[in-house]
Amino acid sequence: MKRISFEDGLIYSFRPELASVATVQSGETMEFVCQDSCGGLIRSEKDTLDRLDFNRVNGATGPVQVADSRPGDVLRIRIKQIQVAREGFLSILPKAGVLGDDVPEPKTKMVPLDGDVAVFSKGVRLPIRPHVGTIGVAPRDKEWTTFYPGDHGGNLDTKEISQGHAVYLPVFQPGAQLAMGDIHALMADGEVCVTGIEIAGRVRVQVDVLRGPSLHRPVVETPKEWMALASAPTLDEAARLATRDGVDLLSRGAKLPWEDAYMLASIACDLRISQAVDPWRTAKLVIPKTLMRHLPA
Amino acid sequence: MKRISFEDGLIYSFRPELASVATVQSGETMEFVCQDSCGGLIRSEKDTLDRLDFNRVNGATGPVQVADSRPGDVLRIRIKQIQVAREGFLSILPKAGVLGDDVPEPKTKMVPLDGDVAVFSKGVRLPIRPHVGTIGVAPRDKEWTTFYPGDHGGNLDTKEISQGHAVYLPVFQPGAQLAMGDIHALMADGEVCVTGIEIAGRVRVQVDVLRGPSLHRPVVETPKEWMALASAPTLDEAARLATRDGVDLLSRGAKLPWEDAYMLASIACDLRISQAVDPWRTAKLVIPKTLMRHLPA
Repeated sequence: MKRISFEDGLIYSFRPELASVATVQSGETMEFVCQDSCGGLIRSEKDTLDRLDFNRVNGATGPVQVADSRPGDVLRIRIKQIQVAREGFLSILPKAGVLGDDVPEPKTKMVPLDGDVAVFSKGVRLPIRPHVGTIGVAPRDKEWTTFYPGDHGGNLDTKEISQGHAVYLPVFQPGAQLAMGDIHALMADGEVCVTGIEIAGRVRVQVDVLRGPSLHRPVVETPKEWMALASAPTLDEAARLATRDGVDLLSRGAKLPWEDAYMLASIACDLRISQAVDPWRTAKLVIPKTLMRHLPA
Repeated sequence: MKRISFEDGLIYSFRPELASVATVQSGETMEFVCQDSCGGLIRSEKDTLDRLDFNRVNGATGPVQVADSRPGDVLRIRIKQIQVAREGFLSILPKAGVLGDDVPEPKTKMVPLDGDVAVFSKGVRLPIRPHVGTIGVAPRDKEWTTFYPGDHGGNLDTKEISQGHAVYLPVFQPGAQLAMGDIHALMADGEVCVTGIEIAGRVRVQVDVLRGPSLHRPVVETPKEWMALASAPTLDEAARLATRDGVDLLSRGAKLPWEDAYMLASIACDLRISQAVDPWRTAKLVIPKTLMRHLPA
């Protein structure tokens, strides 16, 4: 199995022109070895976010060229396994996060793992559920730092991009140029304090090039749901785009008139928040597979 | 058991000065008989929202005075049972809902129930989960039409205000002045098309006056969660207020420093959308009861 590490390739922006450090074939399984979002620089509670160079955070391992992928294709990335390090951290910073105005000073909390349990404090132990925070491809026409989420993926911070699930990304450039990083051992919808449990780890994925579906923006697949993801400067705008995409998918996928799909979404498809802090926000419309078995062509 | 109907009292705005049509004691169980949100005027697919007088929609049955409740108290309304009519409807309107700009013309869809299943179409049958869309008390100092959600409750459109759950509202005026209506047989988070399955029904509630907790805004309790609700003109602002309230509750309720509660919320408390259309939006921070057993004083 192919493996690439952040030591082989590490990017801080997704650009239309990215030089790959490896190539995979459609259908191949490979592993990405990832730093934590702060490049291993947070090692104790003395290390706070204000000391970091923000041009050097959220590095993504890659990019990897996917053979024979072309603009208009869709890349399906099935997350086969995420292995995380033994310790992660949470960190807050004035002016960052949903309540940034209320944060008096930077603070870091180290969070050791006890097997599959995060030890937040003596009394608060939480089962981990690792996900990939940043995953993306070379975008259509502008440069996005790995801090931002967008149509190309990037810093989506969507907790369902986790083991056993899949993310679908539109291909904008020849070879797609897949990169990922920013693993979280645990995060809730919203990522309100601006970090999850940030942690290093290894992500095993199976990558497929699909010619069937046509997507503008990322979609996540779980065993029971499709999620249409959209990112924008405000939650309201992200919510509108996710709803528009999701209703369009549902209309085509379930062969319903658009008006019926819109009404059905209102009673059966939750509109949710992936993250509200990155600094663009990501929303998701959740379509049960009972309503739509497959992504429409 | 006391019962009041929309024929006894029906309000189209929550105002500081409301004249009650009945009185209940703390601990008493009573029933509210409610019209659908459009006052029974939508009876077939020919009846569309553009024909309605928007000063006469979303009527709430009540108000009911709760004996011995005073400003600063909290009203707990436990939803014991919601019985709904045999048919409801969905309706869309240009410029309304998350995708209002995409709606070419008004359209209504009647949705009959087959027992506890909503028959959206021949192929799409969905189990119902009725909730109370509008529930509120006399507000502190201004008038809110029953169309709006706010600190007093109102058009919260929160799907968890359902049988077996409870909603907690701050009391702003002597006697609280409780009213409710706008029942939905089914709705998803977001209520993206601007309606759920709108339906008439009866709501049996048990009302308690609590002197312990102190709340600024509505809280919903389910068997496993507390939800701090907040409403504002934008999703971003509603999300910020819900997060601020929820983190404050968690800090006091779990006896954690504020910074720790903020970080814990980021990994364990989902920030979600109740509705994105009313025209103010309602967000909720979801606190698992494993982290906080009781509402703090």
